[in-house]
Amino acid sequence: MELALTLHASSDKSLQAQIFDQVRSLILDGRLQAGMSLPPTRLLAERFQVSRNTVVIAYERLVAEGYVEARGTSGVFVTEIPPDDLLLISGPRELLRSNGPVPAQAGEPLLCFAGSPGGGEDRPTIDFWVGRSAASGFPFRVWRRIATKLLSGESQYLTDYCDPAGLPQLRKAIADHLGRTRGMQVTTEQIIVTAGGQDALNLVMNLMRGHTEHLCIENPCYAGASMIFQAEQLPIEPVPVDSEGIRTDSLPNKRRSLIYVTPSHQYPTGVVMSLSRRLALLRWADETDSYIMEDDYDSDFRYDGPPLTALSGLDRGRRVFYVGTFSKSVGAGLRLGFAVVPRIFSDDARMLKARMSNGQSWLEQCALAEFISDGHFDRHIRKLRQLYKSRRDALITALRKRFRDPVISGQDSGLHLVWRLPKGMPNALTIQMKARAAGIGVYALSSGGAFDFDGTAPDDMLMFGYASLTENKIVESIEKLHAILRAMSSAGSR
Amino acid sequence: MELALTLHASSDKSLQAQIFDQVRSLILDGRLQAGMSLPPTRLLAERFQVSRNTVVIAYERLVAEGYVEARGTSGVFVTEIPPDDLLLISGPRELLRSNGPVPAQAGEPLLCFAGSPGGGEDRPTIDFWVGRSAASGFPFRVWRRIATKLLSGESQYLTDYCDPAGLPQLRKAIADHLGRTRGMQVTTEQIIVTAGGQDALNLVMNLMRGHTEHLCIENPCYAGASMIFQAEQLPIEPVPVDSEGIRTDSLPNKRRSLIYVTPSHQYPTGVVMSLSRRLALLRWADETDSYIMEDDYDSDFRYDGPPLTALSGLDRGRRVFYVGTFSKSVGAGLRLGFAVVPRIFSDDARMLKARMSNGQSWLEQCALAEFISDGHFDRHIRKLRQLYKSRRDALITALRKRFRDPVISGQDSGLHLVWRLPKGMPNALTIQMKARAAGIGVYALSSGGAFDFDGTAPDDMLMFGYASLTENKIVESIEKLHAILRAMSSAGSR
Repeated sequence: MELALTLHASSDKSLQAQIFDQVRSLILDGRLQAGMSLPPTRLLAERFQVSRNTVVIAYERLVAEGYVEARGTSGVFVTEIPPDDLLLISGPRELLRSNGPVPAQAGEPLLCFAGSPGGGEDRPTIDFWVGRSAASGFPFRVWRRIATKLLSGESQYLTDYCDPAGLPQLRKAIADHLGRTRGMQVTTEQIIVTAGGQDALNLVMNLMRGHTEHLCIENPCYAGASMIFQAEQLPIEPVPVDSEGIRTDSLPNKRRSLIYVTPSHQYPTGVVMSLSRRLALLRWADETDSYIMEDDYDSDFRYDGPPLTALSGLDRGRRVFYVGTFSKSVGAGLRLGFAVVPRIFSDDARMLKARMSNGQSWLEQCALAEFISDGHFDRHIRKLRQLYKSRRDALITALRKRFRDPVISGQDSGLHLVWRLPKGMPNALTIQMKARAAGIGVYALSSGGAFDFDGTAPDDMLMFGYASLTENKIVESIEKLHAILRAMSSAGSR
Repeated sequence: MELALTLHASSDKSLQAQIFDQVRSLILDGRLQAGMSLPPTRLLAERFQVSRNTVVIAYERLVAEGYVEARGTSGVFVTEIPPDDLLLISGPRELLRSNGPVPAQAGEPLLCFAGSPGGGEDRPTIDFWVGRSAASGFPFRVWRRIATKLLSGESQYLTDYCDPAGLPQLRKAIADHLGRTRGMQVTTEQIIVTAGGQDALNLVMNLMRGHTEHLCIENPCYAGASMIFQAEQLPIEPVPVDSEGIRTDSLPNKRRSLIYVTPSHQYPTGVVMSLSRRLALLRWADETDSYIMEDDYDSDFRYDGPPLTALSGLDRGRRVFYVGTFSKSVGAGLRLGFAVVPRIFSDDARMLKARMSNGQSWLEQCALAEFISDGHFDRHIRKLRQLYKSRRDALITALRKRFRDPVISGQDSGLHLVWRLPKGMPNALTIQMKARAAGIGVYALSSGGAFDFDGTAPDDMLMFGYASLTENKIVESIEKLHAILRAMSSAGSR
């Protein structure tokens, strides 16, 4: 079998990324069909005069993302239905294995919670507040150097209005970054720089208002998104989430819908949307003339395996609005995020951003653009990924040491994981309150920035945002939590 | 006549400001009625054991703002109807006198223009682009020092979410500043920090959506505000503007309205809303259960006389939402502004801001808070006021030198003025295009960020934003403009 690939040595992209992208395109376009074999790596390497290792890496990523499978010595074949288990909570392999199965059976609604967004008051001593990044991880030295340099000229940028869509060099840096890390081929014009993810979600909602008759949202969901939807005068349909992400078989057959999803790390449950669900969601959008809001709030931190291709990358920017933020990856105090809009909406989005707030502050935008372009961002992410991975591992190890076979979800990526409490334990909110009295902040979904639209869910999920806590603090807090739970249980049994 | 005043030596406010505020309150509350006399300054000074000069300054400001009048040697009396001419285009006295009357008769609609927002493309060599401040006026040295200091600590502020309503110290600094300069008694809780004025206008619109059945707007108006109103599903009533500001006799008798006005320096015409109109507008709001959006975009730069009390100051924060910005006074590249909301809306406004963008960037907010609190802001404004006044004077002098008795409005304050072209001249848009071809940017209202809702207006207003241009450039451009107009006129007469 010949593969119609075109490799460019002069491209910005690595050769392995070019091979991966093009083979994936052939599969998604149906030109490479299920059961067909890929040429052996040695042959492909010879044909394109690249190192064999380059081809091996590309194939490995195709296997990891479930597009192809290796069948012993007979070769590599396009999969029948892309297997989802590789895309699911794959976790740290050795930990996962002893954890038993993923929280719920595929196809079974995992959770939905009643509650309202919380947080904000005086913080506990050891606080697993969700979505908080490590203050010590901020790149102070580099940032200070860039900012000081930018302020040392006497430019007109501080007194002028910038392009409302954002500083051109930042938009370009973001587009390049998304191409490298998320499989998205987007132009600078499609990027609108915003005040964090929240502003981007509003931008998309405002942009879609005239195109939308119906709102759909994964349930439970991120409270920030639910607030935006609830402010609209449109019917809202919550769609349940299970261990493969949003249940695409429960999508309403309503035309001109707008749906909100967090495919990389579902908020709050942490599950990863499987490839087959991703494709089903895109098909549904096409069939119903609907649009998708993909909130990719923390996918920079993936601890195991390569990053998954974003929905927006699979869709090639026709029906997916992609929302990203630098709040988790660099710092929430910068208030910088972005939306990637389908090409036909880019002019409208720019005008809309002008109407909303007329752009973002120049200094932060310019500093971030340099930070990304000069390679600091990639290094920063690599460093933080190590740091957060150690903290996550410490948390999982501590939970396993003190509790029997804890069922954990969402540990693959991001800044938080969820512990599904075993039967017989008090509910999450009760534990939250007892722990709070002892100076420890752990959160029931209803207090952890999650929202539930239909109030039918169990209450046994405890959220841990671990990124801002040292390993020692994490171990100490789990010891205390264990003591609290033991005291509650013996009080209950008396 | 005894005055019920209570002066506090320990107050943040000067004694003269306390006297001014309290006497004004007594007048507005009706406890001091028209025709009543104020005690002689000597008696009041003795009674409160303050220097007589303190009382004199307070009385002078009351006279200047039209609350009282001096009648020769018989004393100082509360005015029958607050005289408006002191609040109108008072201009540089000597220039105004030879300019003749203000552009239009009071009570006669001054203007309304058809057009759409403009600007953005390649700029002309000498550009009177409206609302642009002087890049050289930015306080680079101080700002750099503050920013570098803030970045030199390794604080958690860059990685944490701040209060969505804004940094507390900035909100306090703004509240204090408004008390000192705009006669507004507001608490920190009423201030919501925003991304410039535009974000603040959106905040108010979103906040008022459930309370509003009808939108009113001065006409012509600021295009940024018209865009926000037009995006709503509500009827819009344009209200004409004359030389006293919005025509309050044309306000619709519609309950639960929201009205947008720019009382300090009407955009685009530059006229100042008279005190009687201000009071009439507040009465209308009370009678119709309506709210007012007061956009005070450039009142920091008032060249003659004391600043006028804001509508919000007269109202005491019940029906007026006040919108301010640092885009003109410090720099648009900071993207910082604020809304002052009536007390009962402060919690809702904070929640709404969280939903909209979850706050502003920490560094800019913190730097600005220090800049204001340490007194730099007041010094900066004083310095720029001198600079801009010289530029404005150069422009007026140049216009007067080359054109006979030019009729000018809006020259008292802000960063732009309007020249109403004499009869027989081509219209403003024609001149704009001819000037543009010669590298000079002057603007018809339709190109200068103004919008007209009913398209009935004359087209003889030419806008000049003078703040960013040196006196030499200004003189040079008016010479060129004169030559262009002469050439057009001789071509036309052939």
